[in-house]
Amino acid sequence: MIYLDNAATTPLDDAVFEEMLPYFKTLYGNSQSQHAVGRAAAEGLISARDRTARIFGCQPSEVYFLSGGTEAGNFAVKGACAAHGRGAAHGRGHMIISAIEHPAVIESAEDMLRRGFEVTFVQPDGNGIIQPSEVERAVRDDTFFCAVMAANNEIGTIQPVKEIGKICASRGIFYYCDCVQSVGVVPFPVKYASAFAVSAHKFYGPKGAAAMYIKKGSAISPLLSGGMQERGLRGGTVNVSSAVGLAAALERAAVGADNRKVLALRNRFLTRVLSEIDGSILNGDSVLRVPANANLSFSGCDGENILFCLDLKSICVSTGSACSAGAVTPSHVVTAVAGKERAKSAVRFTFGKYNTSAEVDETVEALKEIVSRIRSK
Amino acid sequence: MIYLDNAATTPLDDAVFEEMLPYFKTLYGNSQSQHAVGRAAAEGLISARDRTARIFGCQPSEVYFLSGGTEAGNFAVKGACAAHGRGAAHGRGHMIISAIEHPAVIESAEDMLRRGFEVTFVQPDGNGIIQPSEVERAVRDDTFFCAVMAANNEIGTIQPVKEIGKICASRGIFYYCDCVQSVGVVPFPVKYASAFAVSAHKFYGPKGAAAMYIKKGSAISPLLSGGMQERGLRGGTVNVSSAVGLAAALERAAVGADNRKVLALRNRFLTRVLSEIDGSILNGDSVLRVPANANLSFSGCDGENILFCLDLKSICVSTGSACSAGAVTPSHVVTAVAGKERAKSAVRFTFGKYNTSAEVDETVEALKEIVSRIRSK
Repeated sequence: MIYLDNAATTPLDDAVFEEMLPYFKTLYGNSQSQHAVGRAAAEGLISARDRTARIFGCQPSEVYFLSGGTEAGNFAVKGACAAHGRGAAHGRGHMIISAIEHPAVIESAEDMLRRGFEVTFVQPDGNGIIQPSEVERAVRDDTFFCAVMAANNEIGTIQPVKEIGKICASRGIFYYCDCVQSVGVVPFPVKYASAFAVSAHKFYGPKGAAAMYIKKGSAISPLLSGGMQERGLRGGTVNVSSAVGLAAALERAAVGADNRKVLALRNRFLTRVLSEIDGSILNGDSVLRVPANANLSFSGCDGENILFCLDLKSICVSTGSACSAGAVTPSHVVTAVAGKERAKSAVRFTFGKYNTSAEVDETVEALKEIVSRIRSK
Repeated sequence: MIYLDNAATTPLDDAVFEEMLPYFKTLYGNSQSQHAVGRAAAEGLISARDRTARIFGCQPSEVYFLSGGTEAGNFAVKGACAAHGRGAAHGRGHMIISAIEHPAVIESAEDMLRRGFEVTFVQPDGNGIIQPSEVERAVRDDTFFCAVMAANNEIGTIQPVKEIGKICASRGIFYYCDCVQSVGVVPFPVKYASAFAVSAHKFYGPKGAAAMYIKKGSAISPLLSGGMQERGLRGGTVNVSSAVGLAAALERAAVGADNRKVLALRNRFLTRVLSEIDGSILNGDSVLRVPANANLSFSGCDGENILFCLDLKSICVSTGSACSAGAVTPSHVVTAVAGKERAKSAVRFTFGKYNTSAEVDETVEALKEIVSRIRSK
């Protein structure tokens, strides 16, 4: 099996799992309980929060543990809207959302549209970059929220979040920066974002575990009400084993120790494909791009068809994000960047620390054969 | 260590953890991915959903995996409101919420109050029971939602959910029944509830794992938008290991095999305390009550004080729910049932399958000594 879908999820690192283990069995307490068993769990949670804060570069009280990146995106958009409209039954105000955000953010914004809020979706340029000037042009007097991710999940393009964050900060706009795909590549935007989030299963940690930074004093209301957990901003018994796993995985991933290896694999793949397969083209900027990602279109081919043929050869790739898999419409991201035709023929290859150059070569050979076979039909 | 706080959380069952293990390591795929690694994870998810549906007595397509009971309560209230008010920026309509619901439900209802919805909080009687006649009296022409839990988390009282469900069903009211504390004791209200939920860590399963039944055709909108997971009603990469753990734990717990043992421990405890400690009184109905729960008030004592003294003797109990722990106000549930004075002196003892009668006796002796010491001060 060759797994080249590391942007969808990654295998759990053995060392990370080892750190989680005690919290499944012996340290099973509810971290909110006021007794010895609860305190033992709470100590694990405090340590996980401290470690995460150190990596984020913020205060532990600014770290919130959630169930995943989708909850984070919903929390950011809906929580900022609820806080902005506090006391008002009817939503009022304007948000700026990049057109290439994760569906969690885009659909949350659409929900808020129905509540009475207004939204401007900012389009990327032809390289898949959201230009700060476009964000600036979208700003209105009543803009209170902006979401532009650090790196895109489908085409891997790295966004100018520092410039966008500064535009927002200077105008008092709540800036949410989705960092789910940028850990170890883009520095955490702690200085200029109001909030950002990471999801552990994208960097060899457990599923169902996200950490969100929320700058002290930011205007946000809970998405999950009830309970005093997470300083009243996120109810529910905290999943301590997941929080510990996230912290352990984040410490390993944030230093970017595998970037060079992953980049070499990706570039070996890209170089070979672009030179050996006619009509192949890279979607998104070739430089401003996370090391893991190669999103390619193959003219005359259907991306799903390539995916299924590769799967028959035990090679795992994707066409869009796994979140949208099964959807019949082509990727909204590749469509926004390169048009619908290129989106239909797009395949995403995402490399990880457990891949090898032999796997890269085997995939290139398989791809050559498949693309030529599809085209000859 | 004597752990008598099983309503806050339970230790993970070894056999349950064994079933989860493969999904941490070898079967790490994203269940939404369209390739072999994804399909292997999806198979685990399908099996977990089938097993859960069999226990619930519903279709697999009516089972939704969530991150916990708090998410379920928020989803029910806010999702039903969003569906009811679809297309309207301003909330309109009436909800009936029992005054002894979990904070996730009560605070969600309060959020919806601010959105323009109207809410009637139905009070329990002196035994901690929400009378169906009171629910019926609260019904209005515009009532669209009702939440009354199957068993209370603090005092363990079992509610007449069948009667309440029938009142709701006959009027087309969405009935949400929180079953977090009633697994293995109260049959799942699949015939008369629109939705109900369980949380795995309350019955020897993992934390961060809930399953929700939503009757086909019920009017509910997603709380977590984005992604096609869970038939479009709950976005986010599914935590397959948790779903498998939930199913495995549910199968074991739902048959109620430990009820007799737990009931014997609880009754041994109750009989001794009520006869040997003057001024001790049980909060909530003595018969309509889950086997695990003994919530007692000790006149002249502060509940928190008893908790801390027991903790010094390595005995773990709680005053209210763990969700509200750390709050300075006494339990809203005991207050509603028995008044503020009794609430201040209340302590919750919740027994589980790993407790022994020797632990019960040791706790009674400790309690006698502590109560007498506190009273003599």
